Amino acid sequence: MGYIVKRVAVLGATGSIGRQTLEVIDSLPGHFSVIGLAGGRNTALLAEQIEKFQPRFVFHQETRTPPPTTAEYEFLSMEEMARHPEIDLVVIATSGKWGLKPTLAAVRAGKQVALANKESLVMAGELIIGEAKQHGAKILPVDSEHSAIWQCLEGETGRPSRIILTASGGPFRRYSPAELAKVKPEQALQHPSWRMGNKVTIDSATLMNKGLEVIEARWLFGMRFDSINVLIHPQSIVHSMVEFADGSVKAQLGRPDMRLPIQYALSYPERLANPHLPRLDWADIEELTFEPPDLDSFPCLRIAIEAGKKGETFPAALCGADEIAVQQFLAGRIKFTDIPELVERTLEEHKAVATPSLEAIMAADDWARERVMQLVGDKS
Amino acid sequence: MGYIVKRVAVLGATGSIGRQTLEVIDSLPGHFSVIGLAGGRNTALLAEQIEKFQPRFVFHQETRTPPPTTAEYEFLSMEEMARHPEIDLVVIATSGKWGLKPTLAAVRAGKQVALANKESLVMAGELIIGEAKQHGAKILPVDSEHSAIWQCLEGETGRPSRIILTASGGPFRRYSPAELAKVKPEQALQHPSWRMGNKVTIDSATLMNKGLEVIEARWLFGMRFDSINVLIHPQSIVHSMVEFADGSVKAQLGRPDMRLPIQYALSYPERLANPHLPRLDWADIEELTFEPPDLDSFPCLRIAIEAGKKGETFPAALCGADEIAVQQFLAGRIKFTDIPELVERTLEEHKAVATPSLEAIMAADDWARERVMQLVGDKS
Repeated sequence: MGYIVKRVAVLGATGSIGRQTLEVIDSLPGHFSVIGLAGGRNTALLAEQIEKFQPRFVFHQETRTPPPTTAEYEFLSMEEMARHPEIDLVVIATSGKWGLKPTLAAVRAGKQVALANKESLVMAGELIIGEAKQHGAKILPVDSEHSAIWQCLEGETGRPSRIILTASGGPFRRYSPAELAKVKPEQALQHPSWRMGNKVTIDSATLMNKGLEVIEARWLFGMRFDSINVLIHPQSIVHSMVEFADGSVKAQLGRPDMRLPIQYALSYPERLANPHLPRLDWADIEELTFEPPDLDSFPCLRIAIEAGKKGETFPAALCGADEIAVQQFLAGRIKFTDIPELVERTLEEHKAVATPSLEAIMAADDWARERVMQLVGDKS
Repeated sequence: MGYIVKRVAVLGATGSIGRQTLEVIDSLPGHFSVIGLAGGRNTALLAEQIEKFQPRFVFHQETRTPPPTTAEYEFLSMEEMARHPEIDLVVIATSGKWGLKPTLAAVRAGKQVALANKESLVMAGELIIGEAKQHGAKILPVDSEHSAIWQCLEGETGRPSRIILTASGGPFRRYSPAELAKVKPEQALQHPSWRMGNKVTIDSATLMNKGLEVIEARWLFGMRFDSINVLIHPQSIVHSMVEFADGSVKAQLGRPDMRLPIQYALSYPERLANPHLPRLDWADIEELTFEPPDLDSFPCLRIAIEAGKKGETFPAALCGADEIAVQQFLAGRIKFTDIPELVERTLEEHKAVATPSLEAIMAADDWARERVMQLVGDKS
């Protein structure tokens, strides 16, 4: 295979995944060229990244004005960057629904799309997968679980019979509902195995994150919900598994470090040697354990899968409701156990739209956000 | 992909792997046609198999005369069968060095060779892999470990950085050398997880089997010995693992049942749904554990790898010496701990031949067998 420098745009460069993406790129000199950077609120960090990587295109979400650097660049919107002909691969690491439009733009331009943004596929999976097929775009999952499944599917000729998404179970794995009601934000932000942004960390603690991943897996791998299982695996070493028609199971394993799935999406179909990435040391691994999820203590998993099965704008409402509920929990205004309650109540009231446009999807998300805020207001 | 009936010859049809191969074929009607059957001492079973599968070609090792059946068939040698133009895939399930010549014949005829015979690659790996490349033959491993590695490598573009062969550790995993010295054949024949022939079961108990598999892996996957590790995994669920350049590890898992690797070799590159094959039930799997092998109690692993590294006719002498030592142990003439001692002493005395011909390989095996018999005679 020839020596190709991939031209990359990183959207959401200042977030957790964005920073780790640039770390991986920096550790593999000569393989990637950072052509575009789009950052969020952390202006100082974005300025540093611009100085270091000298991108041709920049977008700054917060101020819509260029951060102060000595580098020269052109100011583009995220969507313009995502479809720019000089970009080969777009990393969508923006959080929340801000990932949808750039994802759709990149997909419609037939790009390689390294997708770390959960909401894109959860809220608009049917739309995005349809457009990807039509425009020959390749969606490369950056989540550790979906990357694991993707790695296990490479080279296989048929559809798997089952996908098994593993979940660490979060910091409150053995907690009862009564114990969960007393959980404080600072406890919930202590994830036992992964370093991630706050929203994802809370979603991991409620298992909402795993529910969103089930919906993503449904779209990424064309699986029926009944063929996607969730298994609690506290050591976070087995990142997910695939069962095939003959009963054989393949699993992908590694130390819990997002840089591995990030690098795989960047370097695919090749794998690149990288001494900075951690390796499993079997001397440190005494046992790998597995147990079914506790749906009584963690109803978010069930709620998310139900929303996924219903389809229409339910998953969009789910995302909007959850984002506000998590925000309110982090602000100390509601209990940990109020998160599923608020989300479920909002979904019960949701008037869904079938085969929704992007506008209808966004509207469902907006409606759910407002509804949760009202419900929180009514409570207090 | 078109609907193709593969024309199969099963050499060693009456042994453990041969019987399970025919069981798999029988459970997948319309996919395979049994054109040839070669059997060992169990004349009655071979006659049954001939009645059932109505092969065109038969070989009977013991009597060299046809077993009494009503079926009509042609009598061929195993080598003639292995290279017959009407055979697509040859299953080499003969035990011991009797597998070498048919393997070589099948490889030289450019067949698909489902290889369950360990000795072929251990004794003559360089020769067989070289001929396979030259004649476009495809070697499909039937061992659960090598099948696991093969499945994990499918679709990967580069060579792995490390292979991790798992081993159950056998029935005496935590035994001290003193405890091992008292082990009786009937205890050693009780393998905790796999049903296999007697020779392989004893080799599993001494870890010689794992050593032979390391040598096989070296040839099958073109790996250096330093990049092949062995890890004890008593549950026999993870059948082996592969680590890639980026640190990602892929594993293949399944219930310990030889029918799965057998079927994969038969159906490759497709996987076929087979309700007779067992599926992993995660409700039954509480933990998977891993530990390094104990080379003090199980020196056969070290002895085998050393013989593999030395190459030449050392692996052939290893196979011959081990076969007789195991035979003598099963006959109650030597202790369990005499097996590694006799094998090691024989290898120390071996005068190896570089880049050996098949004749030199067979001669080294014969010499080692005789030498072990002499050593056993001297002892008693």
